[in-house]
Amino acid sequence: MSTGFFGDIKPVAYEGPDSDNPLAFRHYNPDEMVLGKRLEDHLRFAVCYWHNFVWPGNDPFGGQTFERPWFGETMEKAKLKADVAFEMFKILGVPFFTFHDHDVRPEGASYAESVARLDEMADYIARKMEDGGPKLLWGTANLFSNRRYMAGAATNPDPDVFAYAAATVKACMDVTKRLDGQNYVLWGGREGYETLLNTDMGRELDQLGRFLCMVVDYKHKIGFKGTILVEPKPQEPTKHQYDYDVATVYGFLKRYGLEGEVKMNIEQGHAILAGHSFEHELALAATLGILGSIDMNRNDYQSGWDTDQFPNNVPEVALAYYHVLQAGGFTTGGTNFDAKLRRQSLDPEDLIAAHVGGMDVCARGLKAAARMIEDKALSAPLEARYAGWKDAEAQAMLRGERTLEEIAARVAREGIDPQPRSGQQEKLENVVNRYV
Amino acid sequence: MSTGFFGDIKPVAYEGPDSDNPLAFRHYNPDEMVLGKRLEDHLRFAVCYWHNFVWPGNDPFGGQTFERPWFGETMEKAKLKADVAFEMFKILGVPFFTFHDHDVRPEGASYAESVARLDEMADYIARKMEDGGPKLLWGTANLFSNRRYMAGAATNPDPDVFAYAAATVKACMDVTKRLDGQNYVLWGGREGYETLLNTDMGRELDQLGRFLCMVVDYKHKIGFKGTILVEPKPQEPTKHQYDYDVATVYGFLKRYGLEGEVKMNIEQGHAILAGHSFEHELALAATLGILGSIDMNRNDYQSGWDTDQFPNNVPEVALAYYHVLQAGGFTTGGTNFDAKLRRQSLDPEDLIAAHVGGMDVCARGLKAAARMIEDKALSAPLEARYAGWKDAEAQAMLRGERTLEEIAARVAREGIDPQPRSGQQEKLENVVNRYV
Amino acid sequence: MSTGFFGDIKPVAYEGPDSDNPLAFRHYNPDEMVLGKRLEDHLRFAVCYWHNFVWPGNDPFGGQTFERPWFGETMEKAKLKADVAFEMFKILGVPFFTFHDHDVRPEGASYAESVARLDEMADYIARKMEDGGPKLLWGTANLFSNRRYMAGAATNPDPDVFAYAAATVKACMDVTKRLDGQNYVLWGGREGYETLLNTDMGRELDQLGRFLCMVVDYKHKIGFKGTILVEPKPQEPTKHQYDYDVATVYGFLKRYGLEGEVKMNIEQGHAILAGHSFEHELALAATLGILGSIDMNRNDYQSGWDTDQFPNNVPEVALAYYHVLQAGGFTTGGTNFDAKLRRQSLDPEDLIAAHVGGMDVCARGLKAAARMIEDKALSAPLEARYAGWKDAEAQAMLRGERTLEEIAARVAREGIDPQPRSGQQEKLENVVNRYV
Amino acid sequence: MSTGFFGDIKPVAYEGPDSDNPLAFRHYNPDEMVLGKRLEDHLRFAVCYWHNFVWPGNDPFGGQTFERPWFGETMEKAKLKADVAFEMFKILGVPFFTFHDHDVRPEGASYAESVARLDEMADYIARKMEDGGPKLLWGTANLFSNRRYMAGAATNPDPDVFAYAAATVKACMDVTKRLDGQNYVLWGGREGYETLLNTDMGRELDQLGRFLCMVVDYKHKIGFKGTILVEPKPQEPTKHQYDYDVATVYGFLKRYGLEGEVKMNIEQGHAILAGHSFEHELALAATLGILGSIDMNRNDYQSGWDTDQFPNNVPEVALAYYHVLQAGGFTTGGTNFDAKLRRQSLDPEDLIAAHVGGMDVCARGLKAAARMIEDKALSAPLEARYAGWKDAEAQAMLRGERTLEEIAARVAREGIDPQPRSGQQEKLENVVNRYV
Ligand SMILES: [Co+2]
Ligand SMILES: [Co+2]
Ligand SMILES: [Co+2]
Ligand SMILES: [Co+2]
Ligand SMILES: [Co+2]
Ligand SMILES: [Co+2]
Ligand SMILES: [Co+2]
Ligand SMILES: [Co+2]
Repeated sequence: MSTGFFGDIKPVAYEGPDSDNPLAFRHYNPDEMVLGKRLEDHLRFAVCYWHNFVWPGNDPFGGQTFERPWFGETMEKAKLKADVAFEMFKILGVPFFTFHDHDVRPEGASYAESVARLDEMADYIARKMEDGGPKLLWGTANLFSNRRYMAGAATNPDPDVFAYAAATVKACMDVTKRLDGQNYVLWGGREGYETLLNTDMGRELDQLGRFLCMVVDYKHKIGFKGTILVEPKPQEPTKHQYDYDVATVYGFLKRYGLEGEVKMNIEQGHAILAGHSFEHELALAATLGILGSIDMNRNDYQSGWDTDQFPNNVPEVALAYYHVLQAGGFTTGGTNFDAKLRRQSLDPEDLIAAHVGGMDVCARGLKAAARMIEDKALSAPLEARYAGWKDAEAQAMLRGERTLEEIAARVAREGIDPQPRSGQQEKLENVVNRYV
Repeated sequence: MSTGFFGDIKPVAYEGPDSDNPLAFRHYNPDEMVLGKRLEDHLRFAVCYWHNFVWPGNDPFGGQTFERPWFGETMEKAKLKADVAFEMFKILGVPFFTFHDHDVRPEGASYAESVARLDEMADYIARKMEDGGPKLLWGTANLFSNRRYMAGAATNPDPDVFAYAAATVKACMDVTKRLDGQNYVLWGGREGYETLLNTDMGRELDQLGRFLCMVVDYKHKIGFKGTILVEPKPQEPTKHQYDYDVATVYGFLKRYGLEGEVKMNIEQGHAILAGHSFEHELALAATLGILGSIDMNRNDYQSGWDTDQFPNNVPEVALAYYHVLQAGGFTTGGTNFDAKLRRQSLDPEDLIAAHVGGMDVCARGLKAAARMIEDKALSAPLEARYAGWKDAEAQAMLRGERTLEEIAARVAREGIDPQPRSGQQEKLENVVNRYV
Repeated sequence: MSTGFFGDIKPVAYEGPDSDNPLAFRHYNPDEMVLGKRLEDHLRFAVCYWHNFVWPGNDPFGGQTFERPWFGETMEKAKLKADVAFEMFKILGVPFFTFHDHDVRPEGASYAESVARLDEMADYIARKMEDGGPKLLWGTANLFSNRRYMAGAATNPDPDVFAYAAATVKACMDVTKRLDGQNYVLWGGREGYETLLNTDMGRELDQLGRFLCMVVDYKHKIGFKGTILVEPKPQEPTKHQYDYDVATVYGFLKRYGLEGEVKMNIEQGHAILAGHSFEHELALAATLGILGSIDMNRNDYQSGWDTDQFPNNVPEVALAYYHVLQAGGFTTGGTNFDAKLRRQSLDPEDLIAAHVGGMDVCARGLKAAARMIEDKALSAPLEARYAGWKDAEAQAMLRGERTLEEIAARVAREGIDPQPRSGQQEKLENVVNRYV
Repeated sequence: MSTGFFGDIKPVAYEGPDSDNPLAFRHYNPDEMVLGKRLEDHLRFAVCYWHNFVWPGNDPFGGQTFERPWFGETMEKAKLKADVAFEMFKILGVPFFTFHDHDVRPEGASYAESVARLDEMADYIARKMEDGGPKLLWGTANLFSNRRYMAGAATNPDPDVFAYAAATVKACMDVTKRLDGQNYVLWGGREGYETLLNTDMGRELDQLGRFLCMVVDYKHKIGFKGTILVEPKPQEPTKHQYDYDVATVYGFLKRYGLEGEVKMNIEQGHAILAGHSFEHELALAATLGILGSIDMNRNDYQSGWDTDQFPNNVPEVALAYYHVLQAGGFTTGGTNFDAKLRRQSLDPEDLIAAHVGGMDVCARGLKAAARMIEDKALSAPLEARYAGWKDAEAQAMLRGERTLEEIAARVAREGIDPQPRSGQQEKLENVVNRYV
């Protein structure tokens, strides 16, 4: 029985590019075949629980703007919230959703009570999933909202907080496995510092390394088949997070011997905050073999904080999917909307329209990227640019078969005087514009 | 015989805090004992060749402002430049200097001629060093100014450029060893990209990894005792450099097995451009065991590019040296001024005054840091904050002797409910202000 | 009778630079004479109500961290809050405080009830002020927290919100006058936009101009003798505020004929967010004749949002007061701490220590600035630099007595070929470092 | 007779969206009618002289990359440069070009010689213009490259520099009039400061105000019919420019009584550097009645300096033209490409391709904007959002016929309690995506 929250909004259908129905897909046709695979199976859309159903619309200078019938800290409200959430998932037709423990259950008076409530809600949600609901792309634990975590979870100066966080992750991993989650995500929003004056960075990094090792061990222990993902972010809410960006997390994984066990969940907004482009982070993760999943929500280039907006720029999104596709596409990962409405977007219809727009932008972007790949529009010039490295002597240098001395002798002997060739950046930008 | 460039400016003397002589040290007293060591031996000041004697004062919208008698691309000019440089080193009384090949010799018509000129200038400089001049903190190769490097040196799509760069580094390492350099530095100003559209990042990183391996091999081959240093920078002149920051370079070193061979040369301005504080980069490098040397020149917080200004904020500099001292101080490293005059500072006296002011700021900062260490002003509260981790059960968790399950069981059993304690940031900031 | 909140913390006394009492002033000696005026009368410190007593410690990713006995939306709690606030004001010995309506009274069910509550609390506060409490530096209305203002107050698309905001300001101005406030402040935290797609900027600016005209008219009507101040900020919480910075507000005032009626309340953190230095905003406001008062709280240069931290960098603060003093010092304005504790600073003592540290930094800074002024350390070189403009022909050009043609003819005739002179930036930076 | 520089590149033709010819227009069809006007007459494209033909490809860390036969400081080279420039203008079929004095003539040994050379080159260019070349969108004087301007042109501490700059502008205005320029532009790249320590801001602003008044007077004196434009930029090369952004320049114009005489030349890259979006600056200038012309070159959002890249993001460009069209379109203004190749784009063909791509992006953007206007896609929801202001009482408030007291009384009396309505940002973003 419907909660009635979404009124008479019908499941969103694909109507093609000429539709002017604001609640129809114009580009996202799930069954469309792209590079030999259904579009739905490429994009693997997931909708998040927290921004859509938990966030009250507050910002640093203002309080609640959304008035939702499910707001409140009781199990009844939690179930109403789940009812509405799954109604939205159905309207959108998304194949996946994502959640934190904190999103689906009220905090209990003790750890044990919190876990019991999580378990009860997991049962409730499991029934909805069985009843035609979406699958779980990933579960995660909220280790940042409660004041106990104000100085860190795994990196807290108090080992009891470390323990509490560890226990909480254990419970969330259990639930994620039970709901057949495809991945488990860790975002360390409080794993960082406000000031180095009160922080022992070396000690805290070791705590964090230990924590992540335990997570990986537990994954194997319980036979969870999903991927462990870390979501990098440079700062906010802390002044500085330890998992700054993909490169930083890679070094961290190498240091603690986890680079074969953990992959990345990369968010466009976090890439921007760290001084990179989204495609940089994707290409780097692909290069390092740790590209896992994406949070497809953008930041405003003018804002110095995480705005978590729905994607709306097709050329940018196309380049992001270009790197995802070049890396072989998603396996356990997908396209999660860790995106929130602007706090002035009060209406239920805004929730639907925002996702419809975001999904269409992604579909357009991925299809453009696929066409570029089919045409070798970028890869052919790329191969030509590096063609000199096919030369035997070049290969020998690269394989480590030449020393500085040998190379220096050859340069002197042959009078090598390399002449630069055009990088053709503008031409390549023009090429992209043929596809988007 | 003096070139006369600095007129009647005398060697700069320490006159104490009450002096109002603009060309005297008020805080830098080389023989002052600090934490059991001479101040000079703590700070290990070095002056750079390039900004002081090579840069014409141009910026992206304007040309030369400095009119120096040694400007010009002949060996005669190069020798006059060296004469003036060593006069300045003597006036300042600095124990070290630093240079690129490009700074001291005109580019030749071929690789062989460039090396020959470098060798001739190395002889010339060696005589000045023997004649009471400063020692060499580090040498380095300029792999970014010449158009051949426009698309990278080690990471160039053309293997001939890789070879030319390798040959050039070989020559610079030879000269650095001959001049008894304490370190050899690599800054990859062109090792990055302008656009990913024409860039194969994975391939280029492998080229860079190979290049650095060859450098390390050659160091051992020739018995160079100094440290190999990489200087991170996130961008400028390229849109994105591969050696973005300390964390990124650490991951890179781990990937190519070089973390035991290479350390960092960290510059405040580059830290700022990468979204970090200088002390963050220093503390992180110390934690990772790769803190080598520093470039003590600041960026303007308002400017989005590298301004390479002389340090002038004592509280900031004090925190930087706090981390250097906590890490045990410099061994082969030192405090290099990779700093340049503003292009309006035309007079010879400006060159001297800028360094005097910068050296005094560093001396004040280091002495303040030393007093904080002596008083345990920051370390005692820090130890108290993490004291809980001395507990046996906490240690067991940290050593990896507990699983998530065991910890979760204990949290439930003991009803652990951690209560947050004040982080005292403002109090600690007040403490620092007692020392600076 | 004491609330006991601050335990046995005594009123903070001046103990001199050698004190290591964390709750004593080391530099702020209110009666010290500086440039012929008491230090207290120069600095005119004010403490704000909101960050200290209203903010629960939440941030965008976490909830309440402070547990204060006065939290709650009743008049009893409001009075307890006032009791504690005035206890803190007394401990600190500050001459002024500042508040919003929203800080001191719970919101009523209607406009009328909100005003009645404000009036009742104004009476309560008035008695405390008479009883040896501080004076009111400024009052203001909170036109940004309540959801009714989510799309602006004066610039709202709904004229009823404009009316509600106008009515609210009227009530706050009445109370400010009654409490003998020295100024009345407007900060337009919601006067801006999230997206231009739904915004008619011209219409909204006209609404804002009208609103400010009404405020000025009402000031004259009721005979309020204080100054009307606008506090610029570029963004946050909105994507873009209309009162971006001092220059923008100046243009706005000129456009609506208000430049003789309204001055600026300038905050360091907002200057930084707008891409300026604090001293830039102060110098510009002084130049334009609209420098009113300051909010002496800093931003973190690394964070892209408003961190409202207590000042802690003496060299920076000294330059700020240098411009305030050069402009003649404060008249109705003062030094307000619109500063908040870090959310981990949980203890009552943190509240006191943070202000003590901030006040000391300001006192040190202002005294350094005063000495620079007494010595003409910066003003004498400045006058020398522009001395050429005393020439009669230069003055004629500046007064508008020469045309382009006449000047061009003279340049050609006299073969004018100006030669640049050193700007001496580094020397001047060294001069400042003698004083801070 | 052709210089041969562009080899066999033919004039670029419109071939329609399906063309894959890299040197054809796919969207820019000059004669296409849009909103009742030819596309060429809407866009009014101009190509700049400086980045294309003067810039050697240097950046702060590297020298010349382009090898052009016309580089060199002789009149012969200047004429060859003009020949090639007009060949490029013809290949592109642009209706306008733009230049600085410095671009077209070598600097002379004296002011008089520089003017004589400028006059000679103006004759040379005039013949090319008559011979089917493009018209002059605007002329301007380079008051920033020569070392005499290092401390400012109009705002220099030395009145002789002010005079030299005034004389130079006079000569450039004469030439601009002679070549029938549609506008005259002033960009104050050195009108700002490196440090406030050596700067008297009030004095310098008065110098700048006087300078601009003289320019306006001279315009009227010689009967120049074009528009005087100021191009705002916040910084770079200086640390801080006085003409920071549109709002700042507006206040400056009001202060010196010039708001009816001077309009804005707005550049996307400069908007970004100042913390705004391009459309913000356009909408604000339109609101203030000072929208003149645009420099259609973008910055990289990741780079903290002016990259002057060719536009390549259609959705962004569409919103820019939306505001231009809503303001009535260009009159004397146009779309200037103040854009430069990346320094690795060495080939003549890169010059052509870059402009072709940029022009196509603009054409696509403007056509999308025009369709949004025709459909009232954004304007209809906008009007509905503010509809409440049509109410008589609302109008009375806005016209200034109500006082704060009257409004407060009405709010109390009627129990006004405004309820927020959705701002629909995501829906409007989706609407835009139907058009781009
Ligand atoms: Co985010
Ligand atoms: Co995310
Ligand atoms: Co640098
Ligand atoms: Co450096
Ligand atoms: Co603030
Ligand atoms: Co403020
Ligand atoms: Co520009
Ligand atoms: Co421009």
